[in-house]
Amino acid sequence: MTKVFDKPEDFAAAALAGFCAANADRVRAVAHGAVRAAPGPRGKVALLVGGGSGHYPAFLGYVGTGLADAAVAGDVFASPSTAWIHGVAKAANRGGGVILGFGNYAGDVLNFGSAAERLRAEGIDARILAVTDDVASAGADERAKRRGVAGDLPVFKITGAAAEAGLDMDAVMAVAGRANDATVSFGVAFDGCTLPGQGTPLFTVDAGQVGMGLGIHGEPGISTRPMMPAADLARTLLDPLLAERPAGQDGRVAVILNGLGRTKYEELFVLWHHLTGLLSDAGLTPVDPEVGEFVTSLDMAGCSLTLTWLDDELEGYWRAPADAPAFRKGTVARPAAAAEDIGADAESAAQIVAAGPDAQAAGRCVAALIGHVARALADAEEELGRIDAQAGDGDHGQGMARGSAAAADAAEKAVQAGAGAGTVLSLAGDAWADRAGGTSGALWGVALRAWGQALGDDGKPSVQAVAQGAQAAHDAIVRLGGAQVGDKTLVDSLVPFVQVLNERVAAGEALGIAWAAAAARSTEAADATAQLTPRLGRARPLAERSLGHPDAGAVSLALCARVVGANLPG
Amino acid sequence: MTKVFDKPEDFAAAALAGFCAANADRVRAVAHGAVRAAPGPRGKVALLVGGGSGHYPAFLGYVGTGLADAAVAGDVFASPSTAWIHGVAKAANRGGGVILGFGNYAGDVLNFGSAAERLRAEGIDARILAVTDDVASAGADERAKRRGVAGDLPVFKITGAAAEAGLDMDAVMAVAGRANDATVSFGVAFDGCTLPGQGTPLFTVDAGQVGMGLGIHGEPGISTRPMMPAADLARTLLDPLLAERPAGQDGRVAVILNGLGRTKYEELFVLWHHLTGLLSDAGLTPVDPEVGEFVTSLDMAGCSLTLTWLDDELEGYWRAPADAPAFRKGTVARPAAAAEDIGADAESAAQIVAAGPDAQAAGRCVAALIGHVARALADAEEELGRIDAQAGDGDHGQGMARGSAAAADAAEKAVQAGAGAGTVLSLAGDAWADRAGGTSGALWGVALRAWGQALGDDGKPSVQAVAQGAQAAHDAIVRLGGAQVGDKTLVDSLVPFVQVLNERVAAGEALGIAWAAAAARSTEAADATAQLTPRLGRARPLAERSLGHPDAGAVSLALCARVVGANLPG
Repeated sequence: MTKVFDKPEDFAAAALAGFCAANADRVRAVAHGAVRAAPGPRGKVALLVGGGSGHYPAFLGYVGTGLADAAVAGDVFASPSTAWIHGVAKAANRGGGVILGFGNYAGDVLNFGSAAERLRAEGIDARILAVTDDVASAGADERAKRRGVAGDLPVFKITGAAAEAGLDMDAVMAVAGRANDATVSFGVAFDGCTLPGQGTPLFTVDAGQVGMGLGIHGEPGISTRPMMPAADLARTLLDPLLAERPAGQDGRVAVILNGLGRTKYEELFVLWHHLTGLLSDAGLTPVDPEVGEFVTSLDMAGCSLTLTWLDDELEGYWRAPADAPAFRKGTVARPAAAAEDIGADAESAAQIVAAGPDAQAAGRCVAALIGHVARALADAEEELGRIDAQAGDGDHGQGMARGSAAAADAAEKAVQAGAGAGTVLSLAGDAWADRAGGTSGALWGVALRAWGQALGDDGKPSVQAVAQGAQAAHDAIVRLGGAQVGDKTLVDSLVPFVQVLNERVAAGEALGIAWAAAAARSTEAADATAQLTPRLGRARPLAERSLGHPDAGAVSLALCARVVGANLPG
Repeated sequence: MTKVFDKPEDFAAAALAGFCAANADRVRAVAHGAVRAAPGPRGKVALLVGGGSGHYPAFLGYVGTGLADAAVAGDVFASPSTAWIHGVAKAANRGGGVILGFGNYAGDVLNFGSAAERLRAEGIDARILAVTDDVASAGADERAKRRGVAGDLPVFKITGAAAEAGLDMDAVMAVAGRANDATVSFGVAFDGCTLPGQGTPLFTVDAGQVGMGLGIHGEPGISTRPMMPAADLARTLLDPLLAERPAGQDGRVAVILNGLGRTKYEELFVLWHHLTGLLSDAGLTPVDPEVGEFVTSLDMAGCSLTLTWLDDELEGYWRAPADAPAFRKGTVARPAAAAEDIGADAESAAQIVAAGPDAQAAGRCVAALIGHVARALADAEEELGRIDAQAGDGDHGQGMARGSAAAADAAEKAVQAGAGAGTVLSLAGDAWADRAGGTSGALWGVALRAWGQALGDDGKPSVQAVAQGAQAAHDAIVRLGGAQVGDKTLVDSLVPFVQVLNERVAAGEALGIAWAAAAARSTEAADATAQLTPRLGRARPLAERSLGHPDAGAVSLALCARVVGANLPG
């Protein structure tokens, strides 16, 4: 279990600071991440990688020449927020656009996707690279649903080498896509890991058993089998990958034998001793194999095998030199650290332009409503936590209270700077996502930002603009979250709210009346959703549990709708 | 616990094979170790490092330009045998002599010391570098008694850089000695490690406690304290080292923050975050600090801090480029692998020259006696194990049976090749040490080899030569083992045996009568020793337990003396 920490909630931030201090000759700290001390040439496509902490050397250890330009670090096993990703991406951008690389998990998909939208809105060519290598997490016919595990390394390595070679964005993305399509992994677990400050592991494997196909955050696998000798374990790891060998592939493979933390180097070498024979029997030739710890899961016991089916182009990028704190290959002349002030972009606060008097009045109104919402969510924190704990991890109330409080603060500050309704709501959304954390924080962030952009800062928004804003918020959530009505997420109560609001407004009703009707329908839907939620408790997969806080998310959204409805002026 | 293995006894050998296969571009496998694929220039001083397995990246991961020329790997937590070290050292030698570097543990001191003697006897300039950095294991006034822990890395790194720079043997050893004197470490443990195939850890730390000053094989520390936050832990690691800061030292320090296996990178970074401030407060400037896993102890939870007080010369060697599988620094142009056949020396069997008829007859007699000893030890295996288990780890009977059986085989083969008594006994000793393993195997090996050299291969040995051989065997054991009568080792029964044998032979008695008297006195001493041995069981330090198998070693030696006495011809 994790033993070395101060306050558990400070673990990831302290680890980031320590990493940057220990590697001060190679990386430079920026808010919530690190960039190369010696950045690539102007115009180079930048690769930003990231995800939750707890996986070192993923992702900070990959920052260096020939690999990533920057990494962003979330809390332990939690996606970094949209704002964090956005900030580090701005610091990493060399003018050639930024690729946002991450493992394919719901929270990461949401936050990296949302950050990419914001970057593109600012004129930065931002692309998404979600690694999907874990064959245990979905079938070959559902490749896009697969999780990212240790395949992160070869996919990022090949992508980073292509970017370092000076290819343009479309060409780098073509290589990256081919690398991801060519990469498959399978993992086994012997025992779970324990989060800083917690007394029990995220999962356990019974003594004498081995879990097949487990993920890197305690996600359950596809089965358990009795523990076996190393020779059999080697075959168990390799066979599911051989089943996906592309037709006509000539046998060259990049290979990663990855330890998850507590399964040590010499155990991996014992496995490798067997794997060399099995690979050869299968007609495969390992190219620059890597045996060690590359994507860990705190102190989890287990290991995974990754193959990337190579062709001439992929092999060239896989073998190209690289020099990062945790991954070196070949010989790279270490460039001198740049004198320029990296990271200034990431820190610069948004400049607020004072709006006209009507817009400022509308801004004050929006800020007041957010204040009401924040107070209501603070009151409801315990109850929302209780609802969430029945099917999830019980932190939904805390996240909503924290996020809305931060949003109210940010709104108040924006008001004082003379912001209009649109800016107030957008900045409130950013603050909400930043402080609430998790998937629902990210969803609320993108929703409020989208709504704010619909409102704009030109005078007092019309009733129609408010309804269109609700629609925009809905669209952003559905686009990024991918959930539909019935999936037991906040979408279940959002959809009826938006639908009723738009119908009533289109019918010419006043905003207060239309809103109240919409909030009532939303509440009915939330109540129904909560009752439908199965009572699975801790046995439920973490990934599923964290996706949108089923039922509690719908309940809290309806609550917010009612609070705003009750306080709407006029 | 260690999970990945086939037969536990094959773990270290399979790990070595896997390591060499995974790093085939960098190292070449030799029997029981690895050498650089591209050896240093002819005439270069070679650095061979080693010790037990279970500590990766120590020691195999250190083989490369600017660091070690070769590494030899024993079984898990067990010293490599004299013959293994000797063989790998011959493969590593480039004509400039070989430095044998290891941590200061009884078994390693014995086997590396014995190997150095054999190398010197063959005209190779072999030197000993025992790393003694662990401040918890002995006081500053008993520096030579300290164990080697993660200080291995800076001491070997600095020594390797000096050798790479082309210094001659005396100059490299002067640098190495200064580096070792300047290096101090302190470690803490959160939980023990488990040997392959065993169900329980070597030791445990109570929940909520942290063990202070623990070693890297489950040796107990100096105390336990309640678990503390990372900030306090950082201070706890640093304070004992600051207490040994040399007067006038200017503050430059090489720093290693080392994880023992299960304490992961991000935990180490959290500690480093605090240590940077504490080092600065103490007026210390870290030079190229290393934060990671450098000397592990299987999956033990814990960490250690190492400082090397630098001056200009040591700093230069610390910062010099290096390129080994597990340690890279700066930029080294990777040399092409050599075409020459490395390792042929290590594999070549000793050539046996046929002796004269009398010497061959004496050789047959010696081989027959060893056969009797082997059969007696096989019969006594269980009883010796039972005696050993009362104070040690219970494997003495197994080691003696295995060693003597191998010795009898080797002796029989030597006889068939026409060897004289001296060669038969020497080769039997080598085989004994090789197969028995452990400290007592090494002692029996050097003893029989010394005895064999005293007998020689010229005709039938005289009674005086036999007695002188006994004395030579005694001297070799005392020189290498360092034990005295009363330390409850085989020396307790060896000394009276040798003393009585020499007295009786000097008085003109026949060999059979003199030997029988000596064996009887040896048996009395052994019985007394065994009764004196305290019954400490598993709580006893592993290092102490393994040192010469107290009491059981004395018993088995006396048994051998009786068996030989009963079967002596004439």
